[in-house]
Amino acid sequence: MSPELLLAPRVLAVASHDSSSNVGNKVAVFVLQSLGFDVAALNTVQFSNHTGYRQWTGTRATAQEITDLYAGLKQSYLDDFDMMLSGYIPGAEGVTAVGNIAKGLKDKFRHVPGKFFWVLDPVMGDNGKLYVAPEVVPAYKALLPYADLILPNQFEAEQLSDVKIVDMDSLTQAIQVLHEKFHIPHIIITSVSFTTPSHPPSHLSVVGSTMTSDRRARPFKITFPSIDCYFCGTGDMFGALITSRVREAVEAVPGLRSRESWLSEDGVAATELPLARAAEKVLASMHEVLAKTRDAMPAVMERTWASLGGEADRGDEKKAHYVKSKAAELQLVTNLDSLRSPTTTFTATRI
Amino acid sequence: MSPELLLAPRVLAVASHDSSSNVGNKVAVFVLQSLGFDVAALNTVQFSNHTGYRQWTGTRATAQEITDLYAGLKQSYLDDFDMMLSGYIPGAEGVTAVGNIAKGLKDKFRHVPGKFFWVLDPVMGDNGKLYVAPEVVPAYKALLPYADLILPNQFEAEQLSDVKIVDMDSLTQAIQVLHEKFHIPHIIITSVSFTTPSHPPSHLSVVGSTMTSDRRARPFKITFPSIDCYFCGTGDMFGALITSRVREAVEAVPGLRSRESWLSEDGVAATELPLARAAEKVLASMHEVLAKTRDAMPAVMERTWASLGGEADRGDEKKAHYVKSKAAELQLVTNLDSLRSPTTTFTATRI
Repeated sequence: MSPELLLAPRVLAVASHDSSSNVGNKVAVFVLQSLGFDVAALNTVQFSNHTGYRQWTGTRATAQEITDLYAGLKQSYLDDFDMMLSGYIPGAEGVTAVGNIAKGLKDKFRHVPGKFFWVLDPVMGDNGKLYVAPEVVPAYKALLPYADLILPNQFEAEQLSDVKIVDMDSLTQAIQVLHEKFHIPHIIITSVSFTTPSHPPSHLSVVGSTMTSDRRARPFKITFPSIDCYFCGTGDMFGALITSRVREAVEAVPGLRSRESWLSEDGVAATELPLARAAEKVLASMHEVLAKTRDAMPAVMERTWASLGGEADRGDEKKAHYVKSKAAELQLVTNLDSLRSPTTTFTATRI
Repeated sequence: MSPELLLAPRVLAVASHDSSSNVGNKVAVFVLQSLGFDVAALNTVQFSNHTGYRQWTGTRATAQEITDLYAGLKQSYLDDFDMMLSGYIPGAEGVTAVGNIAKGLKDKFRHVPGKFFWVLDPVMGDNGKLYVAPEVVPAYKALLPYADLILPNQFEAEQLSDVKIVDMDSLTQAIQVLHEKFHIPHIIITSVSFTTPSHPPSHLSVVGSTMTSDRRARPFKITFPSIDCYFCGTGDMFGALITSRVREAVEAVPGLRSRESWLSEDGVAATELPLARAAEKVLASMHEVLAKTRDAMPAVMERTWASLGGEADRGDEKKAHYVKSKAAELQLVTNLDSLRSPTTTFTATRI
């Protein structure tokens, strides 16, 4: 038996770390571990909680600290990663430092096709607004040719492709540009916010594509009911789940995991792509965890108010915001089954 | 239904964090999450790997950074913890800062007996040697009256009790001192290294006790086969498992969880203590994980050498040390079942 069969695949997870918030690496590490990965975590920030609370304490890692920490792994041969998932990184220099790690890993394993796979979530903004410095955008653009799978939301896809996305046609065009110009093998646009006849306002879609050998897009779409509540950490949960599920789906196709960037044969249709299989499963887990988080919110809020005792003034808007933010933290540990074996079904369709 | 029944208990885990080593919070957070806890992680160091590799990179959190991070949690009402587990803290000031967090939580919940429970692992040294600065010892001593359960090894128990431990009599005496002088309700000495007729050299013991209302020790012992291999992170795994299992064992006794420090009635015999039940289960999980880690070591070493490719000089002692250190990293994610529902059985006996 190959020794690899016995062992957990190794993944490097690069993202923020908050003490008490289920976002960033707090989510990614647990989800990846739950799905059987040996995870090395490189934390880009150390905050008390996520910034949606509008107040937090803690420190950011400098680009130099990121580089040093990785050099430490490398010198003890701890850099034999099978995958890397990168999420939020503060500042352009940090993005470049993380990119150098990924480039180093690509180079280290250049003689073993399919050995190393980088999932890049280019966290930059949402809903028409950047929440990073403008120089972060070109820093990400420079790294795109090294990524195997990118996970931009609609706004981030616009920033990277320079295509304004207003409908399914322009979205498909943006994907085509990302495949063609940056040679990105796999793309998933994680939230699509325009409405179409087949995509009513109560629903959301993700759109994905794996390019052909001549870099043509093979776009598919998965539509699912939206849960009307503002959660943080959903992008990080998506990233961790897709990292695991894409590997699983690729392993189900004989020989595919030893092809460069796990690129399916040209004859494989969009809806038959391992990326589509993976995304279906990811959305099933996401939907279950989000629904259960929403259902638990009143109980979590009640518990927090109760713990405040005499301090509790439920009419105080600021306090209510903290209590509500906390109740919206993803309920992960109580929903391990939804992460590992979701029962919900969503199906990819052609565009 | 009480809302608490629906929700994961909240635990604050304070320990080191290494990117790629299964020690400190890397172990504790995953183990606690696997057992259904909502974990807030406060990382006291950020290293690339554990120091057993003899080389590492990264930074230590200052006492002020620890205090600030916790203040951040507090201001957003994220400090409604049910339990706290504290492990390695660099320096006496850091120990005092962490102690202040625990004291604050004790005070916050002083009107709700049994609500908050602090598991303190006073990490200071082993095998007759301190590996922290000497001023850390009195810093821990000052905190002992606030702890609910402490987890010293034999050497640390000597440091805290000022009793030289050479046999079961002196060990029991040390426990008696810790109960009496520092009012510590529950104690487990996590590794006992002297040999006795009932404790052959191929075996190890842990010794625990829950004090009576007049602070008499109720010592029990659990003996288990030792696995001849040097693992790191076993103390952190023990701490996380006992945190979960002691709560579970206490919940099995009607009314006990709302008693101050979860102290059993005086009539309960040593071997019937919830602490004994908890420790039995913890050792079962530990034994299974360690045995499986040892069994996987050759495959992990082979994988690392293979990944080094041309670089590999297997005769190089330094390289061999890194490769072996890595292979001895606890195999946690592949052994979730052993953490959650171990099948091995160990039984507590009277001393």
